[in-house]
Amino acid sequence: MSQGDDGGRICPAPPRKRSEDRERFDGWGFADSGFRIHANGAVELSGNRYDLAGTELPDLLPWISRMVGIPLDPREVNPSQYPPVIPEPRENPAFLGELRKFLPDDAICDDSENRLRHGHGHTQKEIYAIKHGQLVRIPDLVVYPNGVEQVEALVAAALRYGACLIPYGGGTNVTQALLCPADEERIIASVDLSRMNRIRWIDPQNRMACIEAGAVGREIVEILAQHGFTMGHEPDSVEFSTLGGWIATHASGMKKNRYGNIEDLVLDVSAATAAGFLTRSSVSPRESVGVDLRRWLYGSEGNLGIVTHATVKLFPLPEVQHYQSVVFRSFEEGFAFLYDLKQHGAPPASVRLTDNLQFQFSRALKPTSVGLKRLKGRFEKFYVTRVKRFDPDEMVACTLVFEGSREEVAVQESALFRIARKHGGLRAGAENGKRGYELTFAIAYIRDFVMDHYLLAESFETSVSWSQTLALCERVKRRVREEHAARGLPGVPFISCRITQLYDTGVCVYFYCAYHYKGVDRPSEVFAEIEQAARDEVLRSGGSLSHHHGIGKLRAEFLSEIMSAPMLEWSRRIKRAVDPHNVFGAANHGVDAGKLSR
Amino acid sequence: MSQGDDGGRICPAPPRKRSEDRERFDGWGFADSGFRIHANGAVELSGNRYDLAGTELPDLLPWISRMVGIPLDPREVNPSQYPPVIPEPRENPAFLGELRKFLPDDAICDDSENRLRHGHGHTQKEIYAIKHGQLVRIPDLVVYPNGVEQVEALVAAALRYGACLIPYGGGTNVTQALLCPADEERIIASVDLSRMNRIRWIDPQNRMACIEAGAVGREIVEILAQHGFTMGHEPDSVEFSTLGGWIATHASGMKKNRYGNIEDLVLDVSAATAAGFLTRSSVSPRESVGVDLRRWLYGSEGNLGIVTHATVKLFPLPEVQHYQSVVFRSFEEGFAFLYDLKQHGAPPASVRLTDNLQFQFSRALKPTSVGLKRLKGRFEKFYVTRVKRFDPDEMVACTLVFEGSREEVAVQESALFRIARKHGGLRAGAENGKRGYELTFAIAYIRDFVMDHYLLAESFETSVSWSQTLALCERVKRRVREEHAARGLPGVPFISCRITQLYDTGVCVYFYCAYHYKGVDRPSEVFAEIEQAARDEVLRSGGSLSHHHGIGKLRAEFLSEIMSAPMLEWSRRIKRAVDPHNVFGAANHGVDAGKLSR
Repeated sequence: MSQGDDGGRICPAPPRKRSEDRERFDGWGFADSGFRIHANGAVELSGNRYDLAGTELPDLLPWISRMVGIPLDPREVNPSQYPPVIPEPRENPAFLGELRKFLPDDAICDDSENRLRHGHGHTQKEIYAIKHGQLVRIPDLVVYPNGVEQVEALVAAALRYGACLIPYGGGTNVTQALLCPADEERIIASVDLSRMNRIRWIDPQNRMACIEAGAVGREIVEILAQHGFTMGHEPDSVEFSTLGGWIATHASGMKKNRYGNIEDLVLDVSAATAAGFLTRSSVSPRESVGVDLRRWLYGSEGNLGIVTHATVKLFPLPEVQHYQSVVFRSFEEGFAFLYDLKQHGAPPASVRLTDNLQFQFSRALKPTSVGLKRLKGRFEKFYVTRVKRFDPDEMVACTLVFEGSREEVAVQESALFRIARKHGGLRAGAENGKRGYELTFAIAYIRDFVMDHYLLAESFETSVSWSQTLALCERVKRRVREEHAARGLPGVPFISCRITQLYDTGVCVYFYCAYHYKGVDRPSEVFAEIEQAARDEVLRSGGSLSHHHGIGKLRAEFLSEIMSAPMLEWSRRIKRAVDPHNVFGAANHGVDAGKLSR
Repeated sequence: MSQGDDGGRICPAPPRKRSEDRERFDGWGFADSGFRIHANGAVELSGNRYDLAGTELPDLLPWISRMVGIPLDPREVNPSQYPPVIPEPRENPAFLGELRKFLPDDAICDDSENRLRHGHGHTQKEIYAIKHGQLVRIPDLVVYPNGVEQVEALVAAALRYGACLIPYGGGTNVTQALLCPADEERIIASVDLSRMNRIRWIDPQNRMACIEAGAVGREIVEILAQHGFTMGHEPDSVEFSTLGGWIATHASGMKKNRYGNIEDLVLDVSAATAAGFLTRSSVSPRESVGVDLRRWLYGSEGNLGIVTHATVKLFPLPEVQHYQSVVFRSFEEGFAFLYDLKQHGAPPASVRLTDNLQFQFSRALKPTSVGLKRLKGRFEKFYVTRVKRFDPDEMVACTLVFEGSREEVAVQESALFRIARKHGGLRAGAENGKRGYELTFAIAYIRDFVMDHYLLAESFETSVSWSQTLALCERVKRRVREEHAARGLPGVPFISCRITQLYDTGVCVYFYCAYHYKGVDRPSEVFAEIEQAARDEVLRSGGSLSHHHGIGKLRAEFLSEIMSAPMLEWSRRIKRAVDPHNVFGAANHGVDAGKLSR
């Protein structure tokens, strides 16, 4: 290692724009991908981006029908009405005139659909609104700064001319953080950071990289890999979400056991705020210097400023990556395995335990099997359900990703399977493991597909101590069913969960739910009510308000249940102190919502 | 594991007060321990607390004499003048009257020496002042709250009657954070948390404990061990420092490779502030809920409130604990080993690399060898210096602590020795390793001993990237020598360093320095100037302002060099917003020092 220098820095080329990576405005994901239904009732994912794509899925619709207690008729469609009525933009000529001084024409956009896209994230409520309703307030302008200076100039202009700024990364937010406050009377500019997407430098010796806030996960992964590195951060939204968004929402990646969550990965961060540019002169491995800028920005959700760039840790690409899977007789046995694994061993990069419904869901997404593969599938099924007497309506699956050196992974695998056997676990193969992780990206498209067929689907998550986990899962499921029944809604709700992260003291639990909304008045609101009831049950069961999604506007009402009043008072005072004119007026966390607006 | 409960909580008995654990007021440590000099020039540590105690150390004085270029005459003593002139307390009868309403008589103390002890930490400047000078401003009162309610009442009383509060844990601070602002005109109450020292509960299933802020490290270690657990946090001050102090200074423990630093260990924290009591309703394994109370308090150094208790992670006591040591031909080779170890292997719980001077220091602390042991020592010495041609004036030592399961430790040891061999490292035995760690606690007493013999000694630390480390060590040593020479001071300065922590992107470097002060005017100030110059050199070399000691008043002047002006402005605004009357008026970090005082 050479000494006294900057670690042999490399400056990679910027990411290339690919036309095939166009994203859709009317729902989740890439424009080339989406589920559709055939006349025979089989479902198919378009495009060739995902493993699941291009094969008929005959079991999906019948299985969903069973789950929600209502037969889904392929011909019965509630077509999207996108685009909805889009509000006219408010104007502030003085502000716009100021912007034109430092932004080129193509960096200021007032296109309606683009403004709409910047005014929402991906909760069911927001997506239902753009397809079957409308948004009452959206950004009046979208601006595309290309560097720190332009971001600073934007903030100065907003301060001077009374504008409100809302930062925008990948648009994948699921807490309604991007929804504009309905009562905001100032002009709202969405600050889209997509032009600030470079990896400024890679320092291979010290294993660090400085990355702009608008860099998208998949591009970060790709470029770092070209240089032999990874950040190791892979949230489920990694295809679209950005470094700045990860910091602002305090994100978690699926491989956190090996690489850590965002707070373990970010070494330094810079941000433009109403009080000026927050930045540091050097990046330290670890320090005690009182104020730590990262601490102000993690979870700030656009309230306090705009993250412009950050320095992150790098890891060499792992020598091997193995997928694996194990099945257990019941969720309880699988959970006992997780506890043992965490307490006695070193868990692999990623460990996920689905409940039985998600195990069934994964099977319902299997294509029509043919030939040998089918025979093998049948044999496996026979072995698991007959010889070992696993009940298909009880059994669960645990999917695994091992990363590291060959030696390391071998040690981890043997320890893991030893512990799994203790709990009656049965190896279910690398292919099923791999499939489990790949499905993560493909099933994100299902929400839009089923919405057309009268199903509203949503996910939410929490973290909870080990000893409270099973009770929490049970209680939340029961509560959703009770709330659904109490409202006399059609069919039964689908409610399922999986454990996606292991910690020393507990886990992250991720819930998926869906219900049939045909004939339901204001279905999106009704469903949101049920979700809030589920959240109440999460808190009563000892769970956190959120493990990694954040607060936004969706969960702000619960803050007073988890924090003492003086703690919320601190938040309000701090917001007021550092952004007295509420330039960052997204009003997430309910921090001074509206009150500080001019 | 039982489910849905509180993890089978256990409530341990409070720590027992032991009369033999009395601490001295006039310097570091336990009253029963201290170095003294015999007529023959040999040095001995009194008491029977440390391994080093009770044996004559004949080589120490001659070696120190050589190091500072001036022969130390055992008969030439500059005796401590402790106690110095102690300022009379200021009075605020209304405040005192209020305190008497909720504090018993024995919880309010105005004893002079006790007030003095609460008015300083352990920098050379503070200790020199109490022995050979004086402190101009110290607390006027020491109060001993016994729980959250009393702390809250204290804050309310301070707000109402215009008092200033400075929290006090173990008094081991080394950033002058405990020094009272000279211009503080209000009554200053030192809030001593020693009566809040209980482990409230241990949750063995979820491996957490809730511990009061005044709990002392050695007592936490002892009580948790009785229940089979450890927090794994062992700063060098663990005998005296407290949980609250660890949080407020953002502390680091020597075994952080296995257990993490304080920010990795604390799951939740509660604090009394001027805006009320900050607390949460549940403890989460990890969450994204915007504001994270821990982030406000880590490194807050008494500026923002008083930490009352925290919930921390626990680990089962390790199956085995092995000490080891390796010697290398040079600091550079030892450093290259560390880099390889961190990048390719899993480093053991603790890894420390001394430079050659500290290696020599450790040898100078050896007692007179006798019999077989002496022969063995000679043989080893011969082997290392003759057969392997290690130069005693170049070679360095790396001391190691392995903790974990037998299997884990075996794997780590074999990987470590393989990497060490690559860099010419030679095993130097478990005993030398153990001794290295035990010396940490004993040598803390040397500062007071040598001060009586006209030597001022101090330590300071930083963190820095791998590629900048060697240059930083060199430059800082050179700068100290240059500054010393430029002032025409007697002899030569002793300046030495060791690497005490490894991180993915760099290390922590710990410097020790000492110089002869006989005939030097204002020696403590002169030495402080040299240290500030060294700090300047640290920053120029890419090092951080502090790895774990913190800022206090000692390094506040450098904050503007490492943070942008708006960042400091944020700090000031936040302080003003949450403590507008500057109740927590220690003025650490220079945050609104004096300005906000009434």
